[in-house]
Amino acid sequence: MDYETPQFFRVMQYAARADRDVVDMVSGNPDWDPPDGLRDGLRDYAEADADEYQYAPSRGLKSLREEIAARRDVTVDRVVVTNGTGEANHLAMTGGLDHFSGDEIVLTDPVYPYYAGRANFLDAETTFVAAGDDGRLDPETVRAAASDETSVIVVNSPNNPTGAIYDADAMAEFVAIAEDHDALLVSDEVYDHFDYAGRFASALEHDSPNVVATNAFSKSMAITGLRVGYAVFPSPDGPSGDLVDRAATRHMLTNVSGSRPAQYAVERALQTTSPEYYAECRRRLERRIDTFCAALDAAGAEYNRPEGGFYVMARFPDFAGSFENVYELVDEAGVAGMPGEAFGESRSDWIRFALVTPRVEEAAERLGNFFE
Amino acid sequence: MDYETPQFFRVMQYAARADRDVVDMVSGNPDWDPPDGLRDGLRDYAEADADEYQYAPSRGLKSLREEIAARRDVTVDRVVVTNGTGEANHLAMTGGLDHFSGDEIVLTDPVYPYYAGRANFLDAETTFVAAGDDGRLDPETVRAAASDETSVIVVNSPNNPTGAIYDADAMAEFVAIAEDHDALLVSDEVYDHFDYAGRFASALEHDSPNVVATNAFSKSMAITGLRVGYAVFPSPDGPSGDLVDRAATRHMLTNVSGSRPAQYAVERALQTTSPEYYAECRRRLERRIDTFCAALDAAGAEYNRPEGGFYVMARFPDFAGSFENVYELVDEAGVAGMPGEAFGESRSDWIRFALVTPRVEEAAERLGNFFE
Repeated sequence: MDYETPQFFRVMQYAARADRDVVDMVSGNPDWDPPDGLRDGLRDYAEADADEYQYAPSRGLKSLREEIAARRDVTVDRVVVTNGTGEANHLAMTGGLDHFSGDEIVLTDPVYPYYAGRANFLDAETTFVAAGDDGRLDPETVRAAASDETSVIVVNSPNNPTGAIYDADAMAEFVAIAEDHDALLVSDEVYDHFDYAGRFASALEHDSPNVVATNAFSKSMAITGLRVGYAVFPSPDGPSGDLVDRAATRHMLTNVSGSRPAQYAVERALQTTSPEYYAECRRRLERRIDTFCAALDAAGAEYNRPEGGFYVMARFPDFAGSFENVYELVDEAGVAGMPGEAFGESRSDWIRFALVTPRVEEAAERLGNFFE
Repeated sequence: MDYETPQFFRVMQYAARADRDVVDMVSGNPDWDPPDGLRDGLRDYAEADADEYQYAPSRGLKSLREEIAARRDVTVDRVVVTNGTGEANHLAMTGGLDHFSGDEIVLTDPVYPYYAGRANFLDAETTFVAAGDDGRLDPETVRAAASDETSVIVVNSPNNPTGAIYDADAMAEFVAIAEDHDALLVSDEVYDHFDYAGRFASALEHDSPNVVATNAFSKSMAITGLRVGYAVFPSPDGPSGDLVDRAATRHMLTNVSGSRPAQYAVERALQTTSPEYYAECRRRLERRIDTFCAALDAAGAEYNRPEGGFYVMARFPDFAGSFENVYELVDEAGVAGMPGEAFGESRSDWIRFALVTPRVEEAAERLGNFFE
């Protein structure tokens, strides 16, 4: 599997060239509006003094870092603002490989392709732990896979692509496994606002020198294009204290700093957006999940109703999760999903659908007609 | 020299804590306004549809890449939009180390500290070539330093900190040296709009598989905080064709994509900004250079009048370019510059002053009084 070239574009390009109308359920781009405060922040930035157009501090605007630290209940010296969760994961994974012994990264299967691509690019050994049929990750399988060679374990909850949420007990066990093997647990929590089951548990509940939590405003504020995320590292005063400084140095020597209008607007949105904005986003997605799962039932598909996030994986009778079949769905049903084989081996019979389109109902009908 | 922690902040913090008014001539942040089109672009982006808030293509907005390619007279498949010149240089230097044989990077002395910091961070061997007393870089000294171990040669013209411009003959020779030693010439041209001597020559005048040019809108549009730059790689169809794809992959796995409002605004500014904007910036800086150099003459200092860029390096009688002396200038003269020792060994007697403050005249007077 060539994870270094994520395959999203391949399917999106095929769908764009199709000779018919296609509902795009490939990308993870929210289709709703960002909070009003985000646009207000951009409007105000457009009128700001010339000095506000110059370098932000490399670790991020101080007031934004303080806002993040207060919300996550950590000290501000643990927070580095990044170019989205992508860079946060990059800093965490490279930092874990540098700091901890071993050169192996433990990932899940199915896997978010960027993790595997980055691990390959960094020449790390990768070990994949298969998720259960319900999409959850059994801590015992992670413990069985981890060894003294393990330097990084990456988990993602709510999970892309399975929709599973790892609960507090599982997260505690992942932290313990990282500690037992002198490794770093990287917990990507970018879908934390999309918890329908009330089960989400952040890795930051554990004050451990073996934990980095990564996150962004990309999904929660519907701004994947603004590239504002962050990583929370272990305290600089603790036994892994060098992780945060090393990550900040890598960030500085790679990017110097993040884009300032985006940070400025996110800070404004954090200050002004009410819980109702996020609640409405969840309700909208739950309605779509209901609609889509009903169509999957009618089509005789197997699936797990997502506990969180905005993806549904489904397995249709006698219809593998291959690129070939996904292309057939584009041409014959007018629905584009991601083949399960793009996420690893364990879900090669499955297809992932992203519910970030207002046309979920239409897509559901089309799939129903195709598979009836 | 610990280049991994650029020392700008050290001096800026000292100046900020000083018990008196200080003219900041430390940072390279332009103090003038960005073009109107830049602000217009941000205003329009604030009203854009939700889908404009989602991921830009990883290599940059297509229309922005096309605009850059047309201006640089290269094919668009050679252009990767980056998070400022910082990331462009990062991609070019890492790509050169990966692709070409040897693990040595040739840098100049004085050196822009980020180059040296990045080389250290990448565990590359570094060889420094001293600039001449006039700040220019004699190609013969570069040829003498280069060897089969050399994989990357970094040049910067107009130069920070010396203000020298490497002319067309010198640039041709740098390209030839890179070709002769199977190395990559990385030509950082971020100050190209600030050419007072009419001597600037871009490395892109040479269609070579051994050349990457890096640039950004940070200085030319006075937007160091927006983080929009680019690298122009050798053609993907030529003998170093994998450089651009490898850099695009590294960019994707590090940052996913650049910040979209910043790219959107830069594209608008490129389309709408007249040559007069850049000409006025040059005239403003030339007036400041006149003022400042006159004060240096009066103080009995040695200096090179900058041919380009916006820095002046000066050597005062019996007053080395140490942090200690720079702090004394802060406290006693009320002027903050950068000690030459922060840029390497060859300029440890010199102090760099950035002319990006409207208070150049005041600073010149203060220095004149201090050294009289």
